[in-house]
Amino acid sequence: MALIVRKYGGTSVADCEKIERVAAKALECQRAGNQVVLVLSAMSGETNKLIGFAHKITDRPNLREMDVLMATGEQVTVALCAIAIEKMGGKARSFLGDQVPILTSDAHTKARILDIPADRLRACLEMGGIPIVAGFQGVTAAGDITTLGRGGSDTTAVALAAALKADVCEIYTDVDGVYTTDPNMCPKAQKIDRISYEEMLEMASLGAKVLEIRSVAFAMRYDVPVHVLSSFTHLPGTIVTKEDKSMEERLISAVTYSKNEARITISKVPDRPGIAATIFKPITDANIVVDMIIQNTRAGDMTDMTFTIPRTDYAQAMEIVEKVAREIGAERVAGSTDIAKVSVVGVGMRNHAGVASQMFDILSRHGINILMISTSEIKISCVIEEKYTELAVRALHEGFGLDAK
Amino acid sequence: MALIVRKYGGTSVADCEKIERVAAKALECQRAGNQVVLVLSAMSGETNKLIGFAHKITDRPNLREMDVLMATGEQVTVALCAIAIEKMGGKARSFLGDQVPILTSDAHTKARILDIPADRLRACLEMGGIPIVAGFQGVTAAGDITTLGRGGSDTTAVALAAALKADVCEIYTDVDGVYTTDPNMCPKAQKIDRISYEEMLEMASLGAKVLEIRSVAFAMRYDVPVHVLSSFTHLPGTIVTKEDKSMEERLISAVTYSKNEARITISKVPDRPGIAATIFKPITDANIVVDMIIQNTRAGDMTDMTFTIPRTDYAQAMEIVEKVAREIGAERVAGSTDIAKVSVVGVGMRNHAGVASQMFDILSRHGINILMISTSEIKISCVIEEKYTELAVRALHEGFGLDAK
Repeated sequence: MALIVRKYGGTSVADCEKIERVAAKALECQRAGNQVVLVLSAMSGETNKLIGFAHKITDRPNLREMDVLMATGEQVTVALCAIAIEKMGGKARSFLGDQVPILTSDAHTKARILDIPADRLRACLEMGGIPIVAGFQGVTAAGDITTLGRGGSDTTAVALAAALKADVCEIYTDVDGVYTTDPNMCPKAQKIDRISYEEMLEMASLGAKVLEIRSVAFAMRYDVPVHVLSSFTHLPGTIVTKEDKSMEERLISAVTYSKNEARITISKVPDRPGIAATIFKPITDANIVVDMIIQNTRAGDMTDMTFTIPRTDYAQAMEIVEKVAREIGAERVAGSTDIAKVSVVGVGMRNHAGVASQMFDILSRHGINILMISTSEIKISCVIEEKYTELAVRALHEGFGLDAK
Repeated sequence: MALIVRKYGGTSVADCEKIERVAAKALECQRAGNQVVLVLSAMSGETNKLIGFAHKITDRPNLREMDVLMATGEQVTVALCAIAIEKMGGKARSFLGDQVPILTSDAHTKARILDIPADRLRACLEMGGIPIVAGFQGVTAAGDITTLGRGGSDTTAVALAAALKADVCEIYTDVDGVYTTDPNMCPKAQKIDRISYEEMLEMASLGAKVLEIRSVAFAMRYDVPVHVLSSFTHLPGTIVTKEDKSMEERLISAVTYSKNEARITISKVPDRPGIAATIFKPITDANIVVDMIIQNTRAGDMTDMTFTIPRTDYAQAMEIVEKVAREIGAERVAGSTDIAKVSVVGVGMRNHAGVASQMFDILSRHGINILMISTSEIKISCVIEEKYTELAVRALHEGFGLDAK
């Protein structure tokens, strides 16, 4: 007997028929001798519809109330799924964020899970019931409804699996697993059977959209095996788990890219101690994440500072940087949004030297100029001109032998 | 400074623009020096849409989960209204049934309010906020979501007004008050300025649809003045309050009718002690409300028993009664659904003799035969053939001087 937490995304619960299918599969899994906990998202499109209502009223809605509003989406699907399981003769019970409870911080619309006392869920399981938990939502110690931000249902599922010490957390979605790269960009992308938490975490932070990054961090921290699979096929998907021998033998596991990149350069910055802090503090204070930073020293106590930020924050960041540049007496601020980041990821890098030079070689052979480089133990990222993104991804995918199966 | 509880029905919060209007009016009322508590229904059509989802899955959905499902309707409107008030520079906070909390019995889909600890609402008011309470919903002691049944938001509002000792409970709806009879049936119907709790209670139980009957009972019990008015005009509506001199001077206050009536007759029932209980217990056990009962004694220890029930319960009641009739050895069961009940209501009856005979006289002058009669201290009801309903209502309205203004 296994304890399985199953999470279904919005496309998997998009209407009553699909919800009935989820219910039937849960019962089938339970009747095969397992304990099952479901975590559901809102019907696809529903959360956007609710946000649309609020934005008809104002561009900057009160965040506490946004959470009250958005939490209704999952409340509908969990109630309907419980109704479906009860109709089929099973025992089920819906649990909202405050009923589990899923205790979170009070950062409305992007709350962090603090604790999940799982006694009520366990009691439901012990009575032969299927607990159906509303994903994406939680509650503060003061009793206010919170939500966890986009993709939060993944985090709910993995956190619940950790709290319940589940054997596996299954994430049902509209793709059938994690691929060696985006199949829409590279038709030769291959499904990965097993991937390590560390690699998945890098991929999520580098722009791969299959799993929400916090859910991967949770899974890694509590060692919860995560199985990503399609709710529309019966194929095995991708298992995200602890690093093992087979993973280390691969040179790299995946190629990722992100076009949500922008670059800002401040020229002739007076090079004195603490100058970097002066520049980056106001940017960070505005909740803008600075990714890569390069500093080139010039003659005469001057330096040029170049860094990347999400393209979506570009306008705001430029405003801040131009103000700071005037204050510190820098000569000039320039920026561009026509860049992209391509990365290769793999725990195999730890044991294989020369991956970086191989990557630079592949890019140069295709005439792609590297603008910035950043590395970690298991990934290498290059910033390039955006127009070369597709070419770079396909070249790296082929060059590192991922095309072949 | 007054403390005002304002309830808006589904048509008054049907879209974002209407919700913004409700928000603006609440702020205006607060800025005029009052404390305001809002109680909102779901957007019109929303509750039926949610019920429709459940009925796509099954005809008999689990009731606990129906309440989880239906409670989302009000959750959307209270959040949007709080967002609107905050945008306009006011302070507002939404409260769900479990956040107030509105403690109820665990009779899912028709729960009864047991207690409303109003500390959190008072704290919100004292900080200058406008609490916006989700109507129709509550919570059990065990933390399960409940709903109060159709029209339950009226009850929420009046119960809250009682708990907060509010000066008035305003019920905003799509009609502009309580009328002397249904204006759709009788164009000469007049809006009533003031009406007593007792009269309103009789009218609600006799089929008038303006106020939900439990809300009137609550208002009477805790002496909460209720002001029924339109959210689409600026006219004063109808005040439901304690009986006063002016009300007693009216001979009658209103004419009501109900077509949801059916009649069943059991002929030649052996007339022995306890026979009525034997007949009516299984009907009551099936939650069918028996209204009028007439017993005619025949010769030879036999009696005929005739009674009325809601027409919507007719088929089920006939089945029960035919079974009972066989068991007790009655001769025959007959029934009809082409009857209606017309009633006149007024506290003035207490001081004016002859209202009943005047009513019978008016009906007979129009050739309308009276099938059954029932009276209370402040109402007289006659069962007539359904086809005479409109004629009877207009004749009584005119005959008791309600046409004139």
